[in-house]
Amino acid sequence: MKRLLVGRPIPTSAQAGQRLVKLLALAVFSSDAISSTAYATEEILDVLVPKAGLEEAIDTLIPISIVVVVLLALVVFSYRQTIHAYPGGGGSYIVSRENLGEKPSLVSGGALMIDYTLTVAVSVSAGVAAVTSAYPSLNRHRVLLCLGVLAVLTLGNLRGMRASARLFAIPTYLYILSLGALIVIGLVRSWTGDLDALPTNEARVADFTGGAALVGITPVLLMRAFSSGAVALTGVEAISNGVPAFRKPEPRNAAITLTWMAAILGSGFFLLAVLVHRLNPTPFDPSSPNYQTLLSVLGEHVFGGKNGAYIVLQASTALILALAANTAFADFPRLASIIARDGFLPSQFTTRGDRLVFSNGILALAIAAGALLIGFRGVTNSLIPLYAVGVFTAFTLSQAGMVQHHRRNREVRWRRGLAINAVGAVATLAVLVDVVVSKFLIGAWIPVVLIPVIVVGFLAIRHHYARVDAELRVPPGWHAPAVHHVAVVVVQKVDRGVAGGLAYARALEPTRIEALAVAIDDGDREAFEGAWGAADLDVPLTVLDSPFRHFVGPIVGHLDAITTDGSVATVVLPDLTVDHLWQEPLHNQQTLLLVNELRERPRTAIVLYPYGAES
Amino acid sequence: MKRLLVGRPIPTSAQAGQRLVKLLALAVFSSDAISSTAYATEEILDVLVPKAGLEEAIDTLIPISIVVVVLLALVVFSYRQTIHAYPGGGGSYIVSRENLGEKPSLVSGGALMIDYTLTVAVSVSAGVAAVTSAYPSLNRHRVLLCLGVLAVLTLGNLRGMRASARLFAIPTYLYILSLGALIVIGLVRSWTGDLDALPTNEARVADFTGGAALVGITPVLLMRAFSSGAVALTGVEAISNGVPAFRKPEPRNAAITLTWMAAILGSGFFLLAVLVHRLNPTPFDPSSPNYQTLLSVLGEHVFGGKNGAYIVLQASTALILALAANTAFADFPRLASIIARDGFLPSQFTTRGDRLVFSNGILALAIAAGALLIGFRGVTNSLIPLYAVGVFTAFTLSQAGMVQHHRRNREVRWRRGLAINAVGAVATLAVLVDVVVSKFLIGAWIPVVLIPVIVVGFLAIRHHYARVDAELRVPPGWHAPAVHHVAVVVVQKVDRGVAGGLAYARALEPTRIEALAVAIDDGDREAFEGAWGAADLDVPLTVLDSPFRHFVGPIVGHLDAITTDGSVATVVLPDLTVDHLWQEPLHNQQTLLLVNELRERPRTAIVLYPYGAES
Repeated sequence: MKRLLVGRPIPTSAQAGQRLVKLLALAVFSSDAISSTAYATEEILDVLVPKAGLEEAIDTLIPISIVVVVLLALVVFSYRQTIHAYPGGGGSYIVSRENLGEKPSLVSGGALMIDYTLTVAVSVSAGVAAVTSAYPSLNRHRVLLCLGVLAVLTLGNLRGMRASARLFAIPTYLYILSLGALIVIGLVRSWTGDLDALPTNEARVADFTGGAALVGITPVLLMRAFSSGAVALTGVEAISNGVPAFRKPEPRNAAITLTWMAAILGSGFFLLAVLVHRLNPTPFDPSSPNYQTLLSVLGEHVFGGKNGAYIVLQASTALILALAANTAFADFPRLASIIARDGFLPSQFTTRGDRLVFSNGILALAIAAGALLIGFRGVTNSLIPLYAVGVFTAFTLSQAGMVQHHRRNREVRWRRGLAINAVGAVATLAVLVDVVVSKFLIGAWIPVVLIPVIVVGFLAIRHHYARVDAELRVPPGWHAPAVHHVAVVVVQKVDRGVAGGLAYARALEPTRIEALAVAIDDGDREAFEGAWGAADLDVPLTVLDSPFRHFVGPIVGHLDAITTDGSVATVVLPDLTVDHLWQEPLHNQQTLLLVNELRERPRTAIVLYPYGAES
Repeated sequence: MKRLLVGRPIPTSAQAGQRLVKLLALAVFSSDAISSTAYATEEILDVLVPKAGLEEAIDTLIPISIVVVVLLALVVFSYRQTIHAYPGGGGSYIVSRENLGEKPSLVSGGALMIDYTLTVAVSVSAGVAAVTSAYPSLNRHRVLLCLGVLAVLTLGNLRGMRASARLFAIPTYLYILSLGALIVIGLVRSWTGDLDALPTNEARVADFTGGAALVGITPVLLMRAFSSGAVALTGVEAISNGVPAFRKPEPRNAAITLTWMAAILGSGFFLLAVLVHRLNPTPFDPSSPNYQTLLSVLGEHVFGGKNGAYIVLQASTALILALAANTAFADFPRLASIIARDGFLPSQFTTRGDRLVFSNGILALAIAAGALLIGFRGVTNSLIPLYAVGVFTAFTLSQAGMVQHHRRNREVRWRRGLAINAVGAVATLAVLVDVVVSKFLIGAWIPVVLIPVIVVGFLAIRHHYARVDAELRVPPGWHAPAVHHVAVVVVQKVDRGVAGGLAYARALEPTRIEALAVAIDDGDREAFEGAWGAADLDVPLTVLDSPFRHFVGPIVGHLDAITTDGSVATVVLPDLTVDHLWQEPLHNQQTLLLVNELRERPRTAIVLYPYGAES
C-alpha cells in the first residue's frame, strides 16, 4: 500500500545537486511571490468595498498599490544584502540565530512554520477559487477540492517529486504570460476605446455591505486594506534561502534573479490596479455561492467571455498557486529538520524517509494546512488576516539580524548595507504592527497567540532533551549493576503458546519461574486449574482473582510483590502470530493491553514471545 | 478521563436480578414497538403522495393500515407461542439455532445485528425530527443533533445506566397519553364539527412530485407503501426475549403484556390513520429545509397551535424514540456476546467492561449507527427501506424455528401452535419478499448484501478460532523443545539505557551477547564507534550500514543470520520511561517501529527493558 502510493525507496547516495540557470531559478523560486498577484488586489478591494463602496475603493486601490510596491522595493534591497552576506543560504531562522541569539531565532522559526502552513492553505484555496470561478457549480465542493489538491501535493512530496526545474518553469511562465496578456490587452483595448468600463454591479456591492450605510475611507480601513495588499510580498525571501542552487557566482546570479522577480511582481501588481481602475470590475463577496475571483471577472471581460484565453488564464493561475503551495512543502520540512537538529523539535523531523524526503515534516504540514482549510471553509479571504503576521515577523527579524551582522562584521561598504537593512527592518516592523493592530480581532490574534506558544514548546522540548541526555550519560568507568530476575509467564489460554513461553523462560535462567492467570468471570479459576492439570507443564499455576473483571490490575499487583526485593520481573507474553491481517483483531488484544499498561513500570521487562504454526 | 466519562468500576457481584410487574414491563419492553407509531403512518404517505397525490394517498392509507394491524395480530399470536415455549428468553438467534441449525441461526444473528443498528439510527433520527419540527431552524443541524443524542446514549450505556424501570416508564406512558389525547381530541372535535379538515397544501405536494404528473396507485406502489407501514412491527419481539424479567408465572404475565402492547400499538396506528383521513394533513417532503413530521402537523392543528399540549406531544415523542434506541443498546451487545461465545465473533465481545456492560458491543453499535446517521444525513425516510429487511428476516426465521419446535416436541395442543406459527412465518416471509422486491433499488439491497457478508464473516471467524485451537492444543505428555538464545541489545544512543540493557541481557544467560547499531546518515558509524569506545561497555558493537536509511531492515537481516541455526534471538530494546505524557512522542519512536515490525517474526523474542531516572 505504502509502496504503491509513495514508491520504492531511494538510496542516500542518490542525493545530488543541480545548479540552475537564472531563467529556471526564477521559475523555481518565484512562484510563491508572483502567484500572490492572483489574490492580493482583490483582498484590498474586499476590505474597502463594504465600508466605502466600489467607486471609492477603486480610487483608493492605486495609492495603496504604490505603497505596497515601494515596500516591495525596500524588502528586495534588504534581501540583496542577505544574499551577499549568506551565500550558503540565509533563511530568517539562520540569520536571526547567528546575529540575534536563540530566542529571536525561535520566534522567527515559529513564525516561519506558521507562514509556510498558511502559504499552503492560502495558495490551495486561491488555486481552487481560480477553478471554481470558471465552473461556479463546483464552488459548493470547495473544501473537498482543496483537500484533494492538498492530498496530491502531500503524496507527491512524500514520493519526493524530483521533477526537473524545467517542468516547474512551465506554470510560472505561463502565468506570467497570461497575466501580462490580460493587462496589456485590457489596457490597450480600454485606451483605444475598444473596451468599456463595466457598470457597477449593485447587487454584488450589496452582498458586501449587507444593506448598511457606507462610512467612507477611515484611517483604520486604510491600515487594514494596506495590510491585505502587503500579502503580495509573501515569498520574496525564497531566493535568499536558495542561493546555493544558483550557478557561480551564486550571490551575484541570485541577486539579479531577485531583482527580476521583484520587477515582475511589482509591475504586475501595479498594472493590475491600473487595469481595475480602468475597467471598474465589481468583486464578488467571498461567501457568495456563485463566487468568482476578481481575476476571473477581469479575464471574462477583457477576453470577451469564458473562452480559450480565459481558460488558459484560470488554469495557469491554479497551476502557479499549486506550485507556490508546493514550495512550502519543500521549505517547511527542511526548516523543521534544522530546528529539530538544534534540539527544539522531536528528533523524528530530522530523519529522511524512504524517498529521501523529510516525511514527518511533510505530514505535519499537510495536517496543519488541512485543518486550516477545513476550519476556514477553504475561503482565501478568511485566511489572509492570519497570513501576514508570520511573514512580516520573519522579515523583521531577518532584517534586524542583518543590521547586527553589518555592525559586527564591518565588511566593505557595511554602513550602506546597514542603512538598507535598517530601513527594511523598520518598514517590515511597521507593516507587522499595522497587521496586528488593524486585524487583531478578525484573525491576526491567532498567530499572535500561536507564535509564543510554539516558542515555549521549542524551549520545553530542548530543555527535556538536554535533561534526559545529562541524566543518561554514562560516566567513564561506570557499570550498570548486575540484575537478578524472576520470570512470569502470563497464561490466557492453556496451549502450546504457554508451553513455548515456559520453555523460553527456562532458557533465561531466572531465579524462579511463575505461571500467572487471571480469573475474570465465574468459573474461570476452575477452568484454568483443570486445563493446567491436564497439560502437565511442570510449573505451578497461580490464578489471581479479579472482582472488577480487569485483566491488568491483578497482574500489576502481583508484579509489585515480585519487584519489591529489587528483582526485575521478566513478563513473558506468548504472542500468537496470525497468517492474515484480518485475523489480527481476533487475538492478542489482552496482550497488547498488558504491553501498554506495563511499559511505564520500572524493573519490569516485557517479553513478546511469538508462537503459531511454527512453534 | 475515562473515569470521568464512564464512572468508577462496578464489581461482578453487583449483577442482580429485578422482577417487573406487568405495568412496568410494558413500559420497559414496548418503547421500541409503540414508538414506531411516530413515523410509520407518515412513511406510508411519503410513498404514495409523490405518485398518487394527497387525496388518493389518504384514501389508500386506511386499508393499508388495516392490513398492517392484521399482520401485527398474526405476529403477536405467533410470539405468544414463543413465550410459552422459551420461558428462558427466545430471541430469534436462539430459537433458530435450536430448531433450524447453525446457518439459519447465523442469518438470523446477522439480520438482528443490522436490525438493532437501524433501530438506533431510525429512532434517533425520528426523535430529532420531533424536536426540529417544533423548532424548524434546528433542522439544518439535524446530523449534529443526531450524533449528539447518539453520544449521550453511548456514554450512558458505557456507564451502565441502571435507571429504575420506573424512570423508563415515564416517557412511554407520557407518549401513550399524548398520542391518545391527540387522537381522541382530534376525532371528537372533527366529528362534532369543531375542527375543519386542513386544505391540501399544494406547494408541499409539489415538493414531493417535483412537478411530474401523477400516475395513481399501482400494485408496486401499494407493495412499497405496505412495506413502509410494516416497520410499525419492529420491536414486537422484545417481550419474547425478556420473559425471565417478568414476575411468576413468567410466560403467562409476558403473554398478557404482549397482548396489551399489541392492542395499544394496533389501535394507535389504526386510529391515527382515521384521524389523518378526517383532517387531511399534508406531509412535508423529508428533504425540505423546513420539514416537520406528520405528527407535528396534526398536533399543531388539533391542539390549536404550537402551545403547551403540542410541546408535550413532541417532547414525549422524542423521549420514547430515545428510549427505543436505548433498547437496542441493551440488545445488540447482549446478542453479540452470545454470538461471540459461540465463536462467531471476536472474543472481545464476551468481556464485560468496568461497569459490567459489554463495552465493545456498545461501541461497535454506536460506530455503525453513527455511520448510518451521517451517510443518510439523519433522514428517517431514507433509512426505512433498509430497516424492514433485518426485522422480517429475523421474524421469519424465528417463526419457522417455532414450527420446527412444535413438530419435534409435540407438546399439548402442538397442532394449534404449529398452525399459528406457520401462518406467522408465511406472513412475515411475504412481507420480507415484499420489502426486498419493492425497495431493492432504493436501499433494501444494502441489508440483502450485508447479511450474507456478515454470515460469511461469522463462519470465517469460527473456522479460524477452531483451527488455531486445534493446532495449539497441548497433547498429553508433550513438552516444548528446549530453547537456546542469543541476546541482541539494540543501540540507538550510547547511554545508561544501553548499559542497563546489557546488564539485563547478561542476566538472561544467552549463548552470546551482541550490541547492534544502525548507521543511517553519513557519519553515524564514526559517531557510534567513538561513543562506544568512550563508554567502555565490555561487549563489542556491530554497526550495520543502511543505504536506504531504514532502521528496521538491516536489523531484520542480522536477526535472520542469528536464527538460522535454530537459536531464538532475544532482542533487547532499551525503552525510555518519561515523566509526562507530552514527552512520549519525543522518544522511543524507532523502538515502537521495531516492535511492530519484529512481532511477526518466528524465533524472535522482543524485550522492552525500561530505563529512566530510576535505573
